[in-house]
Amino acid sequence: MPTSPPGPTIAEVGEHQVIREIMAAAPSSVNGDDAAVLVSAQPNSRVVVSTDMLVERRHFRLDWSTPQEVGSKAILQNFADIEAMGARPISALLALSAPPQTPVSLVRGIAEGIEQQVERFSAELVGGDLTSGEHLVLAVTAVGSLGGNRRPLTIDAARPGQVLVAAGAIGDSAAGMALLERHGRGVPEEFRAFRDAHTNPQLPPGRGMIARATGATAATDNSDGLIADLGTMARRSGVGIDLDPQAIAPTPAMRAVGEHLGIDPWRWVLGGGEDHTILATTPGNIPSGFRRIGTVQRGDGVTVGGEAPAYHAGWLSF
Amino acid sequence: MPTSPPGPTIAEVGEHQVIREIMAAAPSSVNGDDAAVLVSAQPNSRVVVSTDMLVERRHFRLDWSTPQEVGSKAILQNFADIEAMGARPISALLALSAPPQTPVSLVRGIAEGIEQQVERFSAELVGGDLTSGEHLVLAVTAVGSLGGNRRPLTIDAARPGQVLVAAGAIGDSAAGMALLERHGRGVPEEFRAFRDAHTNPQLPPGRGMIARATGATAATDNSDGLIADLGTMARRSGVGIDLDPQAIAPTPAMRAVGEHLGIDPWRWVLGGGEDHTILATTPGNIPSGFRRIGTVQRGDGVTVGGEAPAYHAGWLSF
Repeated sequence: MPTSPPGPTIAEVGEHQVIREIMAAAPSSVNGDDAAVLVSAQPNSRVVVSTDMLVERRHFRLDWSTPQEVGSKAILQNFADIEAMGARPISALLALSAPPQTPVSLVRGIAEGIEQQVERFSAELVGGDLTSGEHLVLAVTAVGSLGGNRRPLTIDAARPGQVLVAAGAIGDSAAGMALLERHGRGVPEEFRAFRDAHTNPQLPPGRGMIARATGATAATDNSDGLIADLGTMARRSGVGIDLDPQAIAPTPAMRAVGEHLGIDPWRWVLGGGEDHTILATTPGNIPSGFRRIGTVQRGDGVTVGGEAPAYHAGWLSF
Repeated sequence: MPTSPPGPTIAEVGEHQVIREIMAAAPSSVNGDDAAVLVSAQPNSRVVVSTDMLVERRHFRLDWSTPQEVGSKAILQNFADIEAMGARPISALLALSAPPQTPVSLVRGIAEGIEQQVERFSAELVGGDLTSGEHLVLAVTAVGSLGGNRRPLTIDAARPGQVLVAAGAIGDSAAGMALLERHGRGVPEEFRAFRDAHTNPQLPPGRGMIARATGATAATDNSDGLIADLGTMARRSGVGIDLDPQAIAPTPAMRAVGEHLGIDPWRWVLGGGEDHTILATTPGNIPSGFRRIGTVQRGDGVTVGGEAPAYHAGWLSF
């Protein structure tokens, strides 16, 4: 928890000053009008858009996450959706509702986290809206660019005979959340990487483009849970997906978290979401930065080594 | 108020079914993946984006507005921002937070209203997000296309010697809100047009493009109040704006509302917002569908017939 005084509230400094603070923390050359005109994408490209809403206490807790982490994760989860189409994130918009007594420093911190994450992708926060509401709610919209004529990566395009590949951790975010539930933000030092995987997940920019360039056809990101997200891919594609248990087995570090908490880490691997790892299916070579974690086959549903998964509960809003 | 039972809640039918209801009410060929790939815009065009957040009881009241009106207005106010750049709205995204006990019929109604409005603009609802929260909150993002090389209409490009033009009513929404405050939804029959101007404002598609095509340089929409919005234009452009009192004088119908409520209708004309009427400055001909309401001059600030405005309070979120 912060020990310095939080400073003035947004009601005290007023809407215009708060917007100036946001634009100072996340500068853009095109923000400040009724709408933002994006820098012209390359010729022969298509626009890709996605939106997500984050509600305080439902999607984030300010005793678990810093404002910077909240902003960074809000961008990351939207940009992961753009990457999962094989496109490149170029811009983001932020609509923010906040109670009048919210410290300006909190809003500035969110904007700083947004800037940190959009910079990693060479993107920009290009516009937004600020309004009063009883709860802190963020809605982020991401805009991406899909170059060339090749099809986007879609969730319905997995085909039997392909391999399933992943770029990034699976289950780390859920392990981090379990640690936060036990310890609050003061997670033991040796497990901090898992806490950070939950409060501030990262995705190396460009994985989706690389997968598309090397022949992948389907992709999604691990947002609701591995079995849940792959279950959607299997159903929409009319295929079955078999995960290789060795390829997704909890790492020694994750097993240590499991022993510390008395929780089977397979629960995090199979049921946890919010890693925002890109999951793709491809007929040929493994794209750079990805590893093989399963196969696509005739049939339906998701199995692990041919068996029904031990855990499959995924995130549902209601 | 509806007399039929509201039917099942979104918690009862579940997230997936609610999303299916939204997609049935507002169908799209590109919705249903991690992100939406927009139909390729014409060559040599730029993408324009804008976002707005609407919080129940702050921006709309369900005892004043039908769910359809809430959805329709959410789109209109975002599309007005796209039009005010001289661009054409092509797509919208909806992020929605709703309490679990919300009737599905309410969400479906919002989606129906969205569809009615996007259809007027030959646009589509292409994606969204649905989440649980303690309050009903909508965040709409609009995507537009700006054709050709000509500059967009910006709020900082008004120049001395230009005329100020408007397409649409000014003050009608504020008059309608005053009627709703007095009567609730049961506004006397003869004043219903004003109620509807508040709960479901309309904007003829294409006015912004027409203004840009005929040489206008600056534009905004009347969202926060005429004096407030033109004050921003004057400040950002480094000019003064003088309104013609005869051109903006309350209509006989609005004067009748003023007499009915005992309120000076000039308050609505000068201080009211949410008409989303396009206000543009142009050096030459009056664009089709617009009328002359003032002049741009050297100096600063906004005057009415050379005098300080009688009312100027505009909307501020805090």
